[in-house]
Amino acid sequence: MTTITFGKLAIIGLGLIGSSLGHAAKRKNLVKVIAGFDADADVRARAAKLGFTDTVTETLEAAVKDADLVILCTPVGAYKSVAQAIAPHLKPGAILSDVGSVKGAVARDVGPFVPAGVHFIPAHPIAGTEFSGPEAGFASLFDGRWTILTPVPGSDEGAVAALKAFWEGCGAQVDVMEIAHHDLVLAMTSHVPHLIAYNIVGTAHELEQVTEGEVIKYSASGFRDFTRIAASDPTMWRDVFLNNREAVLEVLGRFNEDLSRLQRWVRDGNGEALFDLFTRTRAIRRSIISAGQDTAAPNFGRDKPKA
Amino acid sequence: MTTITFGKLAIIGLGLIGSSLGHAAKRKNLVKVIAGFDADADVRARAAKLGFTDTVTETLEAAVKDADLVILCTPVGAYKSVAQAIAPHLKPGAILSDVGSVKGAVARDVGPFVPAGVHFIPAHPIAGTEFSGPEAGFASLFDGRWTILTPVPGSDEGAVAALKAFWEGCGAQVDVMEIAHHDLVLAMTSHVPHLIAYNIVGTAHELEQVTEGEVIKYSASGFRDFTRIAASDPTMWRDVFLNNREAVLEVLGRFNEDLSRLQRWVRDGNGEALFDLFTRTRAIRRSIISAGQDTAAPNFGRDKPKA
Repeated sequence: MTTITFGKLAIIGLGLIGSSLGHAAKRKNLVKVIAGFDADADVRARAAKLGFTDTVTETLEAAVKDADLVILCTPVGAYKSVAQAIAPHLKPGAILSDVGSVKGAVARDVGPFVPAGVHFIPAHPIAGTEFSGPEAGFASLFDGRWTILTPVPGSDEGAVAALKAFWEGCGAQVDVMEIAHHDLVLAMTSHVPHLIAYNIVGTAHELEQVTEGEVIKYSASGFRDFTRIAASDPTMWRDVFLNNREAVLEVLGRFNEDLSRLQRWVRDGNGEALFDLFTRTRAIRRSIISAGQDTAAPNFGRDKPKA
Repeated sequence: MTTITFGKLAIIGLGLIGSSLGHAAKRKNLVKVIAGFDADADVRARAAKLGFTDTVTETLEAAVKDADLVILCTPVGAYKSVAQAIAPHLKPGAILSDVGSVKGAVARDVGPFVPAGVHFIPAHPIAGTEFSGPEAGFASLFDGRWTILTPVPGSDEGAVAALKAFWEGCGAQVDVMEIAHHDLVLAMTSHVPHLIAYNIVGTAHELEQVTEGEVIKYSASGFRDFTRIAASDPTMWRDVFLNNREAVLEVLGRFNEDLSRLQRWVRDGNGEALFDLFTRTRAIRRSIISAGQDTAAPNFGRDKPKA
């Protein structure tokens, strides 16, 4: 997979994912040249020093000009205006893709602007950290993780295959899925977990009887895990919830039903039901480790046994 | 803190915490001799090979005989019967303590059996991993973490000071707190976060529209963090919820109120409110890292940038 698959790659949005994509593409020489653009001049200046692109351009137009592959890496809330701005400058035959965590809204916001002859293939790499900005990116972010392509009906098979090869070159495994199903799966595996993490951290912040100092000191008892997720980029996550509302509310409804049942078990002192649930959930952890999607080290390896 | 503070330590229950306590006490020679007991013969046999005690006894009586410090490390549901069994054999002047995650129930279950002249001081080290059993323990588990002592009214100050010194010798920082407040603080920082983690993993397991294979493959998008907590010892956690019902239900009530509000923000598309919450929660993460209670490495350091 070290063959050059594209001539010019344009990365629009130079945060955690955009910068990681640049590093990953350069690691295996997947493209001849990478141009990057970010709406924030400060981010552009910092990105230019980091070397994950060959050039950082002052305009969207300059970034996408002659690009064979254009990948939107901004928060999804910005996609519509970006798509509108770049559409006239896209090269015929180019692939336009993205990395957004929701896909229905992307098809809705970007689709109408895509010129004939340009292949629009939404995509979503399932990878990230709680850090943001161009300095947060690294080449191995996608290694062993899954990237989901959600081609719109009638997509060119060759273009889909080329994009798949690109992501594999970045270290990812690739799946293809329908847009609506993607948005439901991610509501379950990502969006609702984030919502819940944000919520419990918010509750701890607002609870009068427990001080913030206490929450922080004793966080190693479980709470601190939630704070990592609840430290994710606020703009990105606001846009996720604004753009995957139906699926999030559907999964959240199920979560709430299940939590009411669990609450009743606690109230009734139903030890057997609690034990059964806690045993089932333990098995899922083991499957995730077997699938290579998490470390088997205790506490994620962060509290290492010392000599 | 390398002076010998106790002659004989008895560890009752040789799982993750009991074994870590043995390793930690031996690391700094905090006691002259350690006796261990576990109700499970297989655990006793495995523990005897691991070297974190000097002897593993066949009976509770033999373990606590002549012990200056007895620490209960079984699930809290077993405390009452253990306390009843060991009470006649406790040495006058000995300290009886524990490591349970709830303290009101411990005072209720153990207190009535404590003979005159024995110092009963409940305690709770805020440390652990998702693994169980004598092999899971390690000497540095308590390093830099907090142990909370919850002395009952009228406790001997010298005994409290000796137990504090013991835990500091194990690497912990020590706080003293009232029992009821401990149980509320831990409901917030530990019990409700665990309940929520168990619940979301259960929801993912039962949701018909998303397969278990999909949940596992795409878990790196956030879900996998919850599975670590939801892999914690089922017996221990059943006992926590059975024994801290009121505080858990109180904090859970607040969590539910806050989640309803958040759900409404999603439904209404209230991006400003979402962004504000997500920004506040990010700050709490930073405080936890500054306080040395978690790593600053992205993704807890588990997905390390590779060369």
